[in-house]
Amino acid sequence: MRKNAIGIVGGGGGMGRWFACFLAGRGYTVRISERDGGMPLPELAAACPVVVVAVPMAVTVEVIRKVGPLMKQESLLMDLTSLKEEPVREMLNATTAEVAGCHPLFGPDAPDLKGQNVVICPGRGESGKVWLREIMERNGARVVETTPERHDRIMSVVQGLTHLNTMAMGLAMETLGEDPAELERMSTPAFRAKQDLLEKVFGPSPRLYAELVTKNPSAREVIAAYGKAVAQLKRFVEEEDAEGLEKWLRRGV
Amino acid sequence: MRKNAIGIVGGGGGMGRWFACFLAGRGYTVRISERDGGMPLPELAAACPVVVVAVPMAVTVEVIRKVGPLMKQESLLMDLTSLKEEPVREMLNATTAEVAGCHPLFGPDAPDLKGQNVVICPGRGESGKVWLREIMERNGARVVETTPERHDRIMSVVQGLTHLNTMAMGLAMETLGEDPAELERMSTPAFRAKQDLLEKVFGPSPRLYAELVTKNPSAREVIAAYGKAVAQLKRFVEEEDAEGLEKWLRRGV
Repeated sequence: MRKNAIGIVGGGGGMGRWFACFLAGRGYTVRISERDGGMPLPELAAACPVVVVAVPMAVTVEVIRKVGPLMKQESLLMDLTSLKEEPVREMLNATTAEVAGCHPLFGPDAPDLKGQNVVICPGRGESGKVWLREIMERNGARVVETTPERHDRIMSVVQGLTHLNTMAMGLAMETLGEDPAELERMSTPAFRAKQDLLEKVFGPSPRLYAELVTKNPSAREVIAAYGKAVAQLKRFVEEEDAEGLEKWLRRGV
Repeated sequence: MRKNAIGIVGGGGGMGRWFACFLAGRGYTVRISERDGGMPLPELAAACPVVVVAVPMAVTVEVIRKVGPLMKQESLLMDLTSLKEEPVREMLNATTAEVAGCHPLFGPDAPDLKGQNVVICPGRGESGKVWLREIMERNGARVVETTPERHDRIMSVVQGLTHLNTMAMGLAMETLGEDPAELERMSTPAFRAKQDLLEKVFGPSPRLYAELVTKNPSAREVIAAYGKAVAQLKRFVEEEDAEGLEKWLRRGV
């Protein structure tokens, strides 16, 4: 089936809009379904040989269960969720069409695909997956294919640990209560790099970050490893043991 | 006294070399004293109306006590240490010459002073401090004058918390044990930004970072605030409470 029309469920959200613009710019007919408007799901599924689920993580399963049974045979159902185990399993259950999980490893502020990483978790069928992979690679992305389980495990570090780390910094700063203007005047390049990350996580949409930190299947293991690291650091600080800490850092990453 | 010759104790270290190049490039005669060579301290102090202590934190006090009594009246003794309470106190005790604490808030990889922050902690006398401030500002630095106590307090966040945060991330990654190449292939921009910070702290010279984290007068307060933040995050993760965490992030920084 020729993939000339792409339906995006949640096409008004950050990544939904990014994909809509990206595909429209490459000659595809893009149709949007939104909670509050756009094309109703039955029409979208009937008109589009590819349907992309790009809704917030908390409603992904619900949307997959609605749109999956409406999909035409030989069409492709895919999603853009930041975790892959549950969405891919639900897509396989909800439809007999082709299925591919996709996780673009960048935010809606990326100007294009050049140098960006994209994960594809094959679900069912070849033609949809090949189409997806080709359009990504032709536009400069580095594509990795892996299982949903492996994806989520790696993301427990790449996203889970990263954002947990940023949250811990921000929350400790709040407790210490120093004046942000004074911190800024005496800032270092490393501190400013941390501030840029803080502004995203504590910015207008913290929900995604909260989901990434709490919903990953390895989330408990990650926070346990983190707590262990902090307990070890605490001992070095309390004993003012710079030498011991230095030795320990040399063993690390 | 005309500040035409500058003596740098520890002129072969990162920041010592940076200052030597910077001052030599602006027409000053720069003389270097090193642990293993260069000009002996008595000659350096006799020849130079400004002496800069730029040695590792662990030997700063020892060097100040040696060079301070050798300083000529009306000359300037200054240091570049990342903490200021102890070095400024020791400089005031060790000499009757002018004294200024200085903390350049950047690393030896900075191409020039443009847009960099520099803290000056006045110790004794005006002419040395004014000379220092002028040469910094004329070359594009943003100079802040403050007390050693205030400096160290702000640095407990700007450097102490920042590097503690980076260390916790690196040590947790070590525990989780995922393959670095696989993490890189599936990395996001935020993860790559963290990696850049990790490479510095876990790089060839972790001693400075270990000192900054353990020796700041507020170090225990910082690790306590950090431990509290992590304990709170742990509860949200264990209860898979994305909604609660989101609400809490909205209150933050």
